[in-house]
Amino acid sequence: MRQAGRYLPEYRALKATSSFLEMVRTPELAAEVTLQPLRRFALDAAIIFSDILVIPEALGQGYKFREAGGIAMDYRLESRNQLERLDPAGVQYRLAYVGQALERVKAALKGEQALLGFGGSPWTLGTYMLEGGSADEFERSKAVFYSDRDFFNRLMEKLTAALIEYFLMQIRAGADAIQIFDSWGGIVAGQDYEAASLRWIREIIRALPQGFPVILYAKGTPSQLTDQAFTGASVLGVDWTVDLGVVRRLVPGNVALQGNLDPVLMNTTPEIVRHETNRLLETMRGARGHIFNLGHGIMPQAKIECVEALVQAVTTWR
Amino acid sequence: MRQAGRYLPEYRALKATSSFLEMVRTPELAAEVTLQPLRRFALDAAIIFSDILVIPEALGQGYKFREAGGIAMDYRLESRNQLERLDPAGVQYRLAYVGQALERVKAALKGEQALLGFGGSPWTLGTYMLEGGSADEFERSKAVFYSDRDFFNRLMEKLTAALIEYFLMQIRAGADAIQIFDSWGGIVAGQDYEAASLRWIREIIRALPQGFPVILYAKGTPSQLTDQAFTGASVLGVDWTVDLGVVRRLVPGNVALQGNLDPVLMNTTPEIVRHETNRLLETMRGARGHIFNLGHGIMPQAKIECVEALVQAVTTWR
Repeated sequence: MRQAGRYLPEYRALKATSSFLEMVRTPELAAEVTLQPLRRFALDAAIIFSDILVIPEALGQGYKFREAGGIAMDYRLESRNQLERLDPAGVQYRLAYVGQALERVKAALKGEQALLGFGGSPWTLGTYMLEGGSADEFERSKAVFYSDRDFFNRLMEKLTAALIEYFLMQIRAGADAIQIFDSWGGIVAGQDYEAASLRWIREIIRALPQGFPVILYAKGTPSQLTDQAFTGASVLGVDWTVDLGVVRRLVPGNVALQGNLDPVLMNTTPEIVRHETNRLLETMRGARGHIFNLGHGIMPQAKIECVEALVQAVTTWR
Repeated sequence: MRQAGRYLPEYRALKATSSFLEMVRTPELAAEVTLQPLRRFALDAAIIFSDILVIPEALGQGYKFREAGGIAMDYRLESRNQLERLDPAGVQYRLAYVGQALERVKAALKGEQALLGFGGSPWTLGTYMLEGGSADEFERSKAVFYSDRDFFNRLMEKLTAALIEYFLMQIRAGADAIQIFDSWGGIVAGQDYEAASLRWIREIIRALPQGFPVILYAKGTPSQLTDQAFTGASVLGVDWTVDLGVVRRLVPGNVALQGNLDPVLMNTTPEIVRHETNRLLETMRGARGHIFNLGHGIMPQAKIECVEALVQAVTTWR
């Protein structure tokens, strides 16, 4: 999950002179931001500082942040012509800056911490492209899915191809694992999750080197966890609304779980964080694979002393 | 689920001269709005037109709608004094207008359709009271839950008492079933859902006449469905992100399921609605209890011809 950000004064200092997108696109800055939380906290892994929407942009559909919050794509994907113009070939070159940031972080970590690359799922990225930005109800994405399956599938194929090329580049640049964020997987009708999202994720994982660690995080999809366990992902990230102690019984033993403390707890007190972290660790006692993490990205309001309490509780737990 | 609303021209006509809260508080208007969808569509039940926040209001914490959308409570519940001033006794008298609306609808239905009363869950209502209105992250509700459990429990006790009195009044006024909306159940950490929300719902159901039909709808809580099945609720409403064909295997046979077509489909075309309704009905073929419904309230953008197609598909299905 996102571990850098506005809760860190050193991030806010950089942000005062560079925009979010400048930081993402400048390897020196992206690497610096990636490393910031690792200098403060005894974390086991770094996750590259980037954005899932670099993929639509590399395909030819750019974006910016709206003043009022949320994303505005440069246009809304509507016509066949627009769709055909999206070009997945060479995405790795247009996103070379991500590879360069990964290489910088890899060198700085000296093999002491793992390095995670990431990207969005085809479905999740597709919603931004079809809606023309952030959406409340995802009406248009669903309308296209239900009424023009050819158009929808063609878009997913392009995104899948782009993501495969992108992830392979990230792996060459030093990523030890890839995290796939299906952030909007949880808005799809249960019986359509496979066709709308999961099959494209499965295709991506199948195209990566056999056994390469993939962490699949699909927010708000607890009833799809068993299906997700058969995509080839090594790890399932789960949000905080799921009881990990229950879920560990539902997935096969070769799939590890990642999560899932409620990120809002980072805005409370170190005492609460310690207590809830220990409770969560207890529910996973004896589990073969558990990557402790928040159940979603860290919030700008997070308190540094709470993150410290979390890391200390995890690293001293016996 | 909500079946009246802005998608109906006859609702918009009333709304032109009365505000939402005026309609809720005036039995003649609430009854009229409740009956509007039943005049158009061959529905099996009416759900009383009202609002979950009438309960905090009756306890002494009023509310209004923000210009920019969302709810603003008159104040944010912070001090013990404020908490102690909330008075559940006599809620049924302060909410007599809901009973009067129910009686009017009951008479108009002449026993031909069922009449549903409803209310929010204590947790869901508590979030509005503790946040001072609509919230994004529910930070304060969670902070109170994790750091001042006494305060939290005292609030839940008052809400539980008020809701029991309210539901008993609705039953006396003619409700054939009560629907409990745990709209924000899905933001609680999985292992805390019982303590934050479900135990209070269970207490309410236990206080209603034995065997009285209760429909429990907790949005975004698919991993809690099995626990919800043991609250004494006769029916579990499920949102559209859950595959009903899977869930029917997870709940005991004495609990029926309600749902769960994606409400966004009502904004597409009658063809899509017919096709998806039939698909959903097929997944429930042979199930002992299934109340066909949308997976959430109907949206203002819903098309009347889509609702017609839905009702026709359900009533002609064999």
